[in-house]
Amino acid sequence: LEPVVEIVMGSDADIAIMTEAEKVLKEFKIPYGLRIISAHRTPDKAIEYGKSLNKRGIKVVIAGAGAAAHLAGVIASHTIVPVIGVPLNTSPLSGIDALFSTVQMPGGIPVATMAIGKAGAKNAAIFAVQVLAVEDKSLKEALSDYRKKIAEAVVKKDKQLSKAKIKY
Amino acid sequence: LEPVVEIVMGSDADIAIMTEAEKVLKEFKIPYGLRIISAHRTPDKAIEYGKSLNKRGIKVVIAGAGAAAHLAGVIASHTIVPVIGVPLNTSPLSGIDALFSTVQMPGGIPVATMAIGKAGAKNAAIFAVQVLAVEDKSLKEALSDYRKKIAEAVVKKDKQLSKAKIKY
Amino acid sequence: LEPVVEIVMGSDADIAIMTEAEKVLKEFKIPYGLRIISAHRTPDKAIEYGKSLNKRGIKVVIAGAGAAAHLAGVIASHTIVPVIGVPLNTSPLSGIDALFSTVQMPGGIPVATMAIGKAGAKNAAIFAVQVLAVEDKSLKEALSDYRKKIAEAVVKKDKQLSKAKIKY
Amino acid sequence: LEPVVEIVMGSDADIAIMTEAEKVLKEFKIPYGLRIISAHRTPDKAIEYGKSLNKRGIKVVIAGAGAAAHLAGVIASHTIVPVIGVPLNTSPLSGIDALFSTVQMPGGIPVATMAIGKAGAKNAAIFAVQVLAVEDKSLKEALSDYRKKIAEAVVKKDKQLSKAKIKY
Amino acid sequence: LEPVVEIVMGSDADIAIMTEAEKVLKEFKIPYGLRIISAHRTPDKAIEYGKSLNKRGIKVVIAGAGAAAHLAGVIASHTIVPVIGVPLNTSPLSGIDALFSTVQMPGGIPVATMAIGKAGAKNAAIFAVQVLAVEDKSLKEALSDYRKKIAEAVVKKDKQLSKAKIKY
Amino acid sequence: LEPVVEIVMGSDADIAIMTEAEKVLKEFKIPYGLRIISAHRTPDKAIEYGKSLNKRGIKVVIAGAGAAAHLAGVIASHTIVPVIGVPLNTSPLSGIDALFSTVQMPGGIPVATMAIGKAGAKNAAIFAVQVLAVEDKSLKEALSDYRKKIAEAVVKKDKQLSKAKIKY
Amino acid sequence: LEPVVEIVMGSDADIAIMTEAEKVLKEFKIPYGLRIISAHRTPDKAIEYGKSLNKRGIKVVIAGAGAAAHLAGVIASHTIVPVIGVPLNTSPLSGIDALFSTVQMPGGIPVATMAIGKAGAKNAAIFAVQVLAVEDKSLKEALSDYRKKIAEAVVKKDKQLSKAKIKY
Amino acid sequence: LEPVVEIVMGSDADIAIMTEAEKVLKEFKIPYGLRIISAHRTPDKAIEYGKSLNKRGIKVVIAGAGAAAHLAGVIASHTIVPVIGVPLNTSPLSGIDALFSTVQMPGGIPVATMAIGKAGAKNAAIFAVQVLAVEDKSLKEALSDYRKKIAEAVVKKDKQLSKAKIKY
Repeated sequence: LEPVVEIVMGSDADIAIMTEAEKVLKEFKIPYGLRIISAHRTPDKAIEYGKSLNKRGIKVVIAGAGAAAHLAGVIASHTIVPVIGVPLNTSPLSGIDALFSTVQMPGGIPVATMAIGKAGAKNAAIFAVQVLAVEDKSLKEALSDYRKKIAEAVVKKDKQLSKAKIKY
Repeated sequence: LEPVVEIVMGSDADIAIMTEAEKVLKEFKIPYGLRIISAHRTPDKAIEYGKSLNKRGIKVVIAGAGAAAHLAGVIASHTIVPVIGVPLNTSPLSGIDALFSTVQMPGGIPVATMAIGKAGAKNAAIFAVQVLAVEDKSLKEALSDYRKKIAEAVVKKDKQLSKAKIKY
Repeated sequence: LEPVVEIVMGSDADIAIMTEAEKVLKEFKIPYGLRIISAHRTPDKAIEYGKSLNKRGIKVVIAGAGAAAHLAGVIASHTIVPVIGVPLNTSPLSGIDALFSTVQMPGGIPVATMAIGKAGAKNAAIFAVQVLAVEDKSLKEALSDYRKKIAEAVVKKDKQLSKAKIKY
Repeated sequence: LEPVVEIVMGSDADIAIMTEAEKVLKEFKIPYGLRIISAHRTPDKAIEYGKSLNKRGIKVVIAGAGAAAHLAGVIASHTIVPVIGVPLNTSPLSGIDALFSTVQMPGGIPVATMAIGKAGAKNAAIFAVQVLAVEDKSLKEALSDYRKKIAEAVVKKDKQLSKAKIKY
Repeated sequence: LEPVVEIVMGSDADIAIMTEAEKVLKEFKIPYGLRIISAHRTPDKAIEYGKSLNKRGIKVVIAGAGAAAHLAGVIASHTIVPVIGVPLNTSPLSGIDALFSTVQMPGGIPVATMAIGKAGAKNAAIFAVQVLAVEDKSLKEALSDYRKKIAEAVVKKDKQLSKAKIKY
Repeated sequence: LEPVVEIVMGSDADIAIMTEAEKVLKEFKIPYGLRIISAHRTPDKAIEYGKSLNKRGIKVVIAGAGAAAHLAGVIASHTIVPVIGVPLNTSPLSGIDALFSTVQMPGGIPVATMAIGKAGAKNAAIFAVQVLAVEDKSLKEALSDYRKKIAEAVVKKDKQLSKAKIKY
Repeated sequence: LEPVVEIVMGSDADIAIMTEAEKVLKEFKIPYGLRIISAHRTPDKAIEYGKSLNKRGIKVVIAGAGAAAHLAGVIASHTIVPVIGVPLNTSPLSGIDALFSTVQMPGGIPVATMAIGKAGAKNAAIFAVQVLAVEDKSLKEALSDYRKKIAEAVVKKDKQLSKAKIKY
Repeated sequence: LEPVVEIVMGSDADIAIMTEAEKVLKEFKIPYGLRIISAHRTPDKAIEYGKSLNKRGIKVVIAGAGAAAHLAGVIASHTIVPVIGVPLNTSPLSGIDALFSTVQMPGGIPVATMAIGKAGAKNAAIFAVQVLAVEDKSLKEALSDYRKKIAEAVVKKDKQLSKAKIKY
């Protein structure tokens, strides 16, 4: 199956965080690809990659990068395919540098920015599924089921806590 | 025409910023709606609104709010329709409070966050069009044309500057 | 005994911090409940919960959450029972995201915000007791005793230090 | 009528912001007092003031201060009456210094902190009313009415916007 | 004369700040060019521009941009010519977003970052002259003279102040 | 009379803020001097100045600077005379850059740092008087009187407010 | 010997940091005292302590506290003895809360603020010695010797590095 | 061989970070020196060092320092040789204090600032080589080769990831 979503990251060190996106795409059975492309060290690859997305049938891209995180922005500037950015906390500034570099895009070229780190990587994939679901009824149902499942997990823990704790 | 995108804001004071989103949707001829709903002052409206989106055929929602900006997150928690959040700089903290409240969503419920203020409002609408374009070839072309147009505007200014300035 | 104070948290991972609130309520013999409710993953529970508080006789609610911490605000928007918010440092931003998301509530819907993390959880419970004490003379006395006790603990350590150290 | 709530501020320059609290107390017909006391310039007044609160029948105190805003904390350390703190944006740091100085209280002495500036001053008074309402059924009803009123104001503006705007 | 330094900016709105760099280059009689190129809106121009620098004999590039300021980084990724970045305070975040986006470059692709705004634009040009002076003795002398001149201006003001003020 | 305190600032633009220090020294009749010395533009002056302080009988130095505010630190590194630093909000970063550059001195070379801007300039002079008062009984009395005076000003305003306002 | 300098801290947990101040005072043979006083938990002690300083012959006070660090400010408001504040990094905010709470004192009541943590504790004591040295020639010499010693330590390490490293 | 680049740091504790610069200079076979000089503890050494650079034939200086990092600025104020600053994350503020102290230089005296920590140290050396390459064709080629090498390393990892991962 050809990928419809791709997860790109600036360095192989980012895989530990970005795999959170992978897990979600697997769960929703979305064919996906994984790439390491650096906006700064492999700029020509990044451009070529951005330009190829639409032709290759990629519908959503997820880009994770840390520090002066330009990856999502660079890809976004070369494609009209929706780009989701995940700021990574890989510098001493706890990811606030990556957040600002990803979210503060100038008017014209949006990057849909998620939370810093693992929560953001996970949500990037869920958001990608939500985008795909806009015209896909079965994916909509899958998302509703997913929501129910995560709600039930919270409810279950709520009940366990109520039981486990002996309150005054 | 029934709206396919809706722009929601927490207060009527936000309209001056959120109208940037409106302009883009008009330019792309996307039928849209405009709403004022407060996550905190009209919580039941916000919930009802979130729950109604899918049934009403809304494909993308844009939510702008300032300070402890919960609007996008509250709507997102009640729908699987993609929610785009615009943090507004309407408190003394220059919008950084709204940015953190919008972007730092926990794993499970994503909000696609844009830049603080007008650039973010504009980009929210462009991103909404990009989402709609995933399965719409003519919108893809319209986006490509839009990109060309904004590129040409920069190129034109670049030429004017080169001429206007007499360099040493 | 029916609870008069409830401690709600967004995730079971927060219990290690929020138990600081529990300890204080136990010490003051305040009947309390413990709940796990996520503003984003179980939004309907959060609403239902907020709406039920007054009827169920809950007099004060303590809500702890991290990241884009909407829990306290969401509950506050559905009740007139005083809501105390505890921002948790569970994201890479050290709790400053949770602080802004909790404290920067718009005019109309207050959340009484405490310090980030354990100190905040402890103080949330003390503040809850202070609220209950407004119309309860014996609780006022208990609070005065508590104050004396914590003051004496400091005084004792002050004396130990003076003795232990041989100064020039 | 003897005041049951008092609004204290560190400087007469703060009255323009703190009057937001006054308006709310007037609306709810809560007898209140207004004071200017500086934690640093009139420390003995601040202490005496803190110690007098309970005896004088004050049930809730609202303290607004900017910069290294110690006023709320100093009062709180001398009373068991609930203290609500309002951080003011009166220094070059936009109120973030006042926020940290007010909210980051150590375990033992809570200050219920509100948003920076006018929204915070308003909410401080609403929260004070919520505290008084814990044992006062008619105040509870007044609060419910107030909530309805502010919700209706939003709904009205929502309708006006829908009509005023001609959407595509 | 062919330019040896070029000043590039992301938008024509930036000229008011970047002209500080121009003034310095004029003073040192360095042939220079002025360009408007947007990393995001004219990405292909930015790449082409970066790739052309060395061939065209440009020895130093000064790039000023605001918000998610990628311009300097994008140019730097396509050239080995030294790139000096000037973060501009053109977003609600006072230039701290531009600073982080410019300075926090990953290992491999440096951008020499200057202060936010006008001071940075001025210093970018002075630093460019310092780079050119490494192998140019007359420029070194010009720089020494410039240093003397700015020192004398301070000394003169110091004397004026001493005279003007009658001290106790 | 020879000055015993000197106020140094990095630029003549800083005089509007630093004059707050001057007013206090005049009020306490402390002979003082005013200087403009730039740590960066007149480094040799700064060094010479630092080295001369003790010999010239200067007992306390007040140094105000903005941005990467090195002035206080540079002077402190050349003298054992107490140096008081005033961070000025003269860059787009609202003085937080000057605060960090002034206060975060490494172990060995202290700078006594005051608040950002006018409050800091005023307090720098009061602190200088406090240092001089350590061995000067009449200055101690003058300080006590000053404290009374500023306390009385607050008390007066407190009374005016109580009268002016008609409370419910 | 009666102490002339006292080191006060808000909690016994702070001793590990504040002992850096102690070491310096020992080295300079300054008689000193060590106290644990909490501005919030033992407010009456703090006031009494502040008021007693001048009478007891204390010439300089060093106060270290974390979070909403009011200790130095509270003491300063009750004495004209110079108060040196050390912000401690004991909360999740890395000491920036303590820094703002200590340094941003309002006009009238200065606190001489040092760096966050150990460097600040050490420098507080050195600055205390500098204050004492204003009227003490032998302490001035001791300070000059101390400066030489720390300079020599750097010079020694500089030489070791030059030797140890074999450069290209 | 006489050094043409020198790496200076404020403390021997910084060597673990600054060695990243050393590695790059070795790789490009640039003769270099290593120094420990403290702007604050050995101010005369720093001045003498700054003044000697041009005469000694040093073409570029790399200065790394943490906290109130004045080292690069102090050296820059005494030389017209290009100074590259590396802010180090050696204080509780994660290097943001060092970043502001290094980058926010006033107009007239530039410091070319790199990223905080190891990435910055590495890039400082690469940028130094870029400066040297301005008039050195073989160094330009070496830089182009270096760029290719780091690009190839990314491409290799990209390929490994594609193979290693079995995608849906």
